[in-house]
Amino acid sequence: MAEDCIFCKIRDGEIPADILRRDENCFVIRDIAPVAPAHLLVIPAEHIEYLADARSGFHETVGAMFSAAREVALEEGIAESGYRLVVNQRDDAGQMVPHLHLHVIGGRRLKGMG
Amino acid sequence: MAEDCIFCKIRDGEIPADILRRDENCFVIRDIAPVAPAHLLVIPAEHIEYLADARSGFHETVGAMFSAAREVALEEGIAESGYRLVVNQRDDAGQMVPHLHLHVIGGRRLKGMG
Repeated sequence: MAEDCIFCKIRDGEIPADILRRDENCFVIRDIAPVAPAHLLVIPAEHIEYLADARSGFHETVGAMFSAAREVALEEGIAESGYRLVVNQRDDAGQMVPHLHLHVIGGRRLKGMG
Repeated sequence: MAEDCIFCKIRDGEIPADILRRDENCFVIRDIAPVAPAHLLVIPAEHIEYLADARSGFHETVGAMFSAAREVALEEGIAESGYRLVVNQRDDAGQMVPHLHLHVIGGRRLKGMG
């Protein structure tokens, strides 16, 4: 794990969190500062800081993250009404935690993309 | 291809467009209504309407889309300043074209995710 990474600590149980789903590739928690009625985070188990750093084999990780996102969208009841998947990379996007994560946002009509 | 799908027609050259990158999995064009100085679309060659419909083997497609996104972010000069990747699904997210696509948005400090 990376020192002082909040997502690595959640993965390892060092920081308590309600983990909604987990498999060998990724896990899902609720965003602690939700921007919409449904706001989940799909987080790869591996500490990947930025997409630019990901090794060539990261396709399976990203695919697994999208699988988890569509499953959790069903569970949250937003699969039919609609939802937005967002990955923020670095400062211009406001990336808060330097451990790759996929936002799943829905439950109301969403506004602009940025 | 799907009848009357604008992205399938661009893929097949029936609608002219500047295709920035293309491989067997996906292609990249500029959004015709950009919301930021850099706004690209990464589009799978296969006509997948919604993630919910994607077959189990869609992981490689999504991985290839993310590879294309990080390459095009480098080419656009936004890899270091930052960028946002967005997938909109259905009405609440304002999905405009029912053919899966990944927005790559950057070139300025972005606002909220929706």
